[in-house]
Amino acid sequence: MKLSFDVMASDRRTAARNGRMLTGHGEVLTPAFMPVGTQGTVKTLSPRELKEIGAQTILGNTYHLYLRPGPEVVRTAGGLHRFISWNRPILTDSGGYQVFSLADLNRITEEGVTFQSHLDGSYQIFTPEGTMEIQHDLGADIIMCFDECTPYPCSHQAARTSMGRTLRWARRCRQRHRELEESDGHDQALFGIVQGSTYADLRRECADTLVEMDFPGYALGGLSVGEPKTAMFEMIEAAVPRLPEHKPRYLMGVGFPQDIIAAVARGIDLFDCVLPTRNARNGSVFTSEGPLVVKNAVYARDFRPLDPDCDCYTCRNFSRAYLRHLFQAGEILAPRLATLHSVAFYMRLMREIRQSIAEGRFESWSRVFLERYHQEQESEQSELTTIPGGEQ
Amino acid sequence: MKLSFDVMASDRRTAARNGRMLTGHGEVLTPAFMPVGTQGTVKTLSPRELKEIGAQTILGNTYHLYLRPGPEVVRTAGGLHRFISWNRPILTDSGGYQVFSLADLNRITEEGVTFQSHLDGSYQIFTPEGTMEIQHDLGADIIMCFDECTPYPCSHQAARTSMGRTLRWARRCRQRHRELEESDGHDQALFGIVQGSTYADLRRECADTLVEMDFPGYALGGLSVGEPKTAMFEMIEAAVPRLPEHKPRYLMGVGFPQDIIAAVARGIDLFDCVLPTRNARNGSVFTSEGPLVVKNAVYARDFRPLDPDCDCYTCRNFSRAYLRHLFQAGEILAPRLATLHSVAFYMRLMREIRQSIAEGRFESWSRVFLERYHQEQESEQSELTTIPGGEQ
Repeated sequence: MKLSFDVMASDRRTAARNGRMLTGHGEVLTPAFMPVGTQGTVKTLSPRELKEIGAQTILGNTYHLYLRPGPEVVRTAGGLHRFISWNRPILTDSGGYQVFSLADLNRITEEGVTFQSHLDGSYQIFTPEGTMEIQHDLGADIIMCFDECTPYPCSHQAARTSMGRTLRWARRCRQRHRELEESDGHDQALFGIVQGSTYADLRRECADTLVEMDFPGYALGGLSVGEPKTAMFEMIEAAVPRLPEHKPRYLMGVGFPQDIIAAVARGIDLFDCVLPTRNARNGSVFTSEGPLVVKNAVYARDFRPLDPDCDCYTCRNFSRAYLRHLFQAGEILAPRLATLHSVAFYMRLMREIRQSIAEGRFESWSRVFLERYHQEQESEQSELTTIPGGEQ
Repeated sequence: MKLSFDVMASDRRTAARNGRMLTGHGEVLTPAFMPVGTQGTVKTLSPRELKEIGAQTILGNTYHLYLRPGPEVVRTAGGLHRFISWNRPILTDSGGYQVFSLADLNRITEEGVTFQSHLDGSYQIFTPEGTMEIQHDLGADIIMCFDECTPYPCSHQAARTSMGRTLRWARRCRQRHRELEESDGHDQALFGIVQGSTYADLRRECADTLVEMDFPGYALGGLSVGEPKTAMFEMIEAAVPRLPEHKPRYLMGVGFPQDIIAAVARGIDLFDCVLPTRNARNGSVFTSEGPLVVKNAVYARDFRPLDPDCDCYTCRNFSRAYLRHLFQAGEILAPRLATLHSVAFYMRLMREIRQSIAEGRFESWSRVFLERYHQEQESEQSELTTIPGGEQ
């Protein structure tokens, strides 16, 4: 079956809403956070661990999977779900972001983007049609249009030119997707991506044009790339009211817990970000009281769990002192247990958001959560270090 | 409770036997293989995964845990079982092997061994009494005497001198262990270690002297250090008949599946080795048909499980092609899934050995197993690359 989306409950004071997205691989209750599985694995975790902590859907990166193992291997395996043994929904991005951020060299033309692989320096080209073909080989439930992601800052003129191309590419993606659908019979929902840098007029124009093309879902791209937080929220506020009520809205590459809460209040349904996984691998985990750098010496004799409020496997069985020891010793179990906890933290965050919306107390829940949660300074800055939809 | 050991069944044609070893943390059915958990974790695996695949007991390394996190942290945590969240039996070695093989510099005197930490170059001293104190802090169910492990080759004279010291150290270990027992009340069984290099007369003499000291179990040390396989089996044949029937016999640092089978036939009950874990991390796994180097390009499109006869999580869910991709991509899930499989393979090997002994068909089972199992050339050589009881 193709994607369906129903709004189950709407918050009275904010634009927050509960949705139910149904795909050929089951449902996703929104607001939802998608752990990033760049190369066909959410780094350090097994599929059964992801299920255990309540992950409903994960994200795969077209750029990475195209380079390695290659779409043909994945297709031959029976698609990404079977290849990686994940039978719940998957979303793949288009590779657009990575060819700009990761590839060694890139040249943009109307046709597409020529780039050099960050792995072996080989020349490659991504076109709107080509990324549709790759994403059909991968077979994710939700696939994304190939877009141009503008850097920050970006002049209004450059942003407008780029947006125009993104819109023309979206049309070509839709066309090629339809052709492929007819031949391979895959039930994949293609989402459009709203660009327009930090300019509200461009964001509105882009959203309006994409809505005319009638996609089953819409993403906001080109955010969380270094712009001030205020600018990001203004862009969400500009675009979301132009998007149809009954279609899912996906904010790509976001973010910190407080940003997710703020974006949910502005009507966003779907999120992805490398923060919980990447930071955990570096020894920093999320807890109810804020981030905790468990590899620090201060935890060498701290026998409490990472987060006393958490019921994940890590917190039920292991102490901060043990985690700190594992990080010191360079043991693989260290990033494993830390990642398991931090993704579980994000999954619980989203469950609490959904429940508070359902019970009409999203705002009061947010206040209580944020009062207790103390993010360090970095969160007030832009998320310069995060790569939306892909992690190395 | 202290350790008890009962022989439940004995093979009629060989010296193989089924035993039941009972400790304060539950039973161990023998012959048993102990996965190596050098630094307080069997590399890449979680305790629940170890339980799932049937690990009955694991080994910890005193040398490593002494240096990091230090015995005081483990004692404060409530002992190694609680620190690492493993509530089944644990055996710790004495650090004897590591101070000779890993430490940067070592000087042996009658008092003990002075060495430089391989981590920070700091000077440390291990004495028989000191390693008893550390092992009491760690609190394993089975602890080992501090011994001198002779290199291969070693002259008869040097081996005799070293063996004499090992025996005097064993006496001092036993004495200090008894004193500590009275004060801390820990129920720990201290095993003696038979040394004597590749000389049958020394092995017999060492075994006899240790048996007079009456330990609750006996290990064979200083084997699998580069000597020919035939020499190793001769030493087992020399020592085992001198050891009491009703006490467990532990062959340290062995080994390949075919070596384990051969040693079981000679009356060995306990084994440990880094082979399944270390080789798996390097992309080589054990299967019913022999080792398989899954990271090789030939498996890029091989969608069969690692071992079609295996029912572990890895083999139930993932293909060789996926494992190969994960290794290529440098993903942590690669060593995780490979290690899980290889340790599961060893656990199944030991279950089959126990069952075949119980059913009086150990020899015929071995023949069938070995006919199918094709080890590469390396197994016929000595295991120069393995470090008994510790893995870096």
